[in-house]
Amino acid sequence: MEYEKGGPYPPDQYIRVDAGRLRSFVSEVFVKLGVPKEDADIVADNLVAADLRGIESHGVSRLRRYVDGIKVGAVKTRPDIRIVKEGPVHALVDGDHGLGQPVAYRAMRLAIEKAKENFIGVVGVRNSNHYGIAGYYAKMALDEDLIGISLTNSRPLVAHTGAIGKYIGTNPISIAVPSEREPHFLLDMATSIVTIGAMEVAGRKGLEIPEGWAIDERGEYTKDPKVVIKSGALLPLGGLGELFRGYKGYGLGVAVDILCGVLTGSAWGRSVKNTTEKYSNVGHFFVAINPEGFTSIEEFKKNMEALKQELKSAPRHPKLGRIWIHGEKAWLTERYRLKHGIPIYIKTQEMIRGVAEELGLEPPF
Amino acid sequence: MEYEKGGPYPPDQYIRVDAGRLRSFVSEVFVKLGVPKEDADIVADNLVAADLRGIESHGVSRLRRYVDGIKVGAVKTRPDIRIVKEGPVHALVDGDHGLGQPVAYRAMRLAIEKAKENFIGVVGVRNSNHYGIAGYYAKMALDEDLIGISLTNSRPLVAHTGAIGKYIGTNPISIAVPSEREPHFLLDMATSIVTIGAMEVAGRKGLEIPEGWAIDERGEYTKDPKVVIKSGALLPLGGLGELFRGYKGYGLGVAVDILCGVLTGSAWGRSVKNTTEKYSNVGHFFVAINPEGFTSIEEFKKNMEALKQELKSAPRHPKLGRIWIHGEKAWLTERYRLKHGIPIYIKTQEMIRGVAEELGLEPPF
Repeated sequence: MEYEKGGPYPPDQYIRVDAGRLRSFVSEVFVKLGVPKEDADIVADNLVAADLRGIESHGVSRLRRYVDGIKVGAVKTRPDIRIVKEGPVHALVDGDHGLGQPVAYRAMRLAIEKAKENFIGVVGVRNSNHYGIAGYYAKMALDEDLIGISLTNSRPLVAHTGAIGKYIGTNPISIAVPSEREPHFLLDMATSIVTIGAMEVAGRKGLEIPEGWAIDERGEYTKDPKVVIKSGALLPLGGLGELFRGYKGYGLGVAVDILCGVLTGSAWGRSVKNTTEKYSNVGHFFVAINPEGFTSIEEFKKNMEALKQELKSAPRHPKLGRIWIHGEKAWLTERYRLKHGIPIYIKTQEMIRGVAEELGLEPPF
Repeated sequence: MEYEKGGPYPPDQYIRVDAGRLRSFVSEVFVKLGVPKEDADIVADNLVAADLRGIESHGVSRLRRYVDGIKVGAVKTRPDIRIVKEGPVHALVDGDHGLGQPVAYRAMRLAIEKAKENFIGVVGVRNSNHYGIAGYYAKMALDEDLIGISLTNSRPLVAHTGAIGKYIGTNPISIAVPSEREPHFLLDMATSIVTIGAMEVAGRKGLEIPEGWAIDERGEYTKDPKVVIKSGALLPLGGLGELFRGYKGYGLGVAVDILCGVLTGSAWGRSVKNTTEKYSNVGHFFVAINPEGFTSIEEFKKNMEALKQELKSAPRHPKLGRIWIHGEKAWLTERYRLKHGIPIYIKTQEMIRGVAEELGLEPPF
């Protein structure tokens, strides 16, 4: 089947851009700013992967922010990424305030190597920056027949249960699990109902958000994404108050902050800063688990296939759409966009042309 | 301050019972059924811990089910608990269909020993049974200055997004983190909005549940907890459909099932059975992380204290109650109940008297 997330994409507002073309442009941008080619390629691949998978909020629409982070000196182009502590299955990596993507990529690689040798790999990262979509790193483990877990904290955006104002990050959890056939199980979720990126996208497009996603500065529901960004706050998964267990989303968000921030010696809660502030001190936490430590990989992947089948073949709710496996929508969207191109919104086109002009580069469209 | 969860407890419906008295009675029950004293004590401590912490649904009110599980031969009293696979930081334990609590207790002890020696401990468990509250095992790590994570799958109770009927368990996640002072951060949450235990408690008391927690067999919201138990299903955290991101609770539930069921070679999804069915094949997954692998324990606990303070001192929402840290309500309730006794509901009293009579034991009240 053909499927694309978030559509339709009317041609007067969107152009379709080839993923490869977009990737080389983004890489050129970072190289021009002084980032080594290898690292620039990782950032480019990460941002375009988000666009391919239908996560517009974490794709090239964020390019301006990363560029500005480097320009103001809040993000180092040639950081001294160091392993501070290490054992056979664990490590602590210091990102030295480099771009989050290359730091996180190396940390997850380290976790993968450890899991291949000793069945488990656990790597914490401090002094990093926004690392894009969490699922990118979890998927790296999946591609090596490992279970991958990727966590990061973020600047404060969520009002915890009983509070107003932005206190904890949207602190995502991603878990990727190999199976015999694509789409593999790939959960990639903010611990808030929605991300701030979704507010930014809605804001750019002049759209309202549904009541119940976020509150204003007095704690009342608001439908205006700009109010949320300016003075309000997102709500944790489970919503406002205790009735639908908003404290569970709050608790998961804090747990991510503890592993990524408190444990690694990075910032947490209100102390985590934006990409353009010196320094954001974002922390990450990666786990790779080798199924061979518990069962055979063949058996494991076969049983994952059966689990997916069981979920897909359940009786359908008469008022809801089809049953999805996590990662399935993103996988279908990626296949569609590899063929038809990535839809780039008109304001994002302008931003990208602006960045190209600023740096004396050929724009990708 | 004095605080007790879930009150008030009117004296015509509840009696207050001393925790120690209740614990010895429960232990006697299992010893009488042929369980070794050491294991019986673990089950008793686990069930009474739930009651002390205000989780009535997972306390002694479940005694009948465990007793019946043993009586029908679905739960073995003297299982041959074996380590099937083991490395320096990981292990797979086979519970041989014994009571979940002694199996899980040993598995978490193993994870703790590994984390003390090598900073990380990861232990999967297959062929186990219902293990009571997840937080009990996470707290074991906390008590040793480690971060503890405890996961279990359960028999199918939740309709995943887009489906009707019971397909995945309430599959809880518990994370416990040491800090300088109590209450420590102790998240213990079902990945559904509420647990089936909450339905059972409401059913026993003839209460309605709020709309939005669960659906009937056609997928419509129901307020009748008995309908949920009989033919309906619980909803994942985030609720019905996609608007408030019910697929996130669904995804977390499946992730727990993968780690506890698929990875360990235990049952998952629809194949997990009730405690009284032969065999339930519940699986668990435990992680212990030694903060010393990343920072010093003193620094870590100091920063956890700061994080808790930051959350507690946020501006209060004008329409909501106080701001809580996860585990705080349970900790206060435990202190209150250690002093004043555990409130036991009238129907639970009857059940306990019945079990005592059946086994020729002195009832605890």
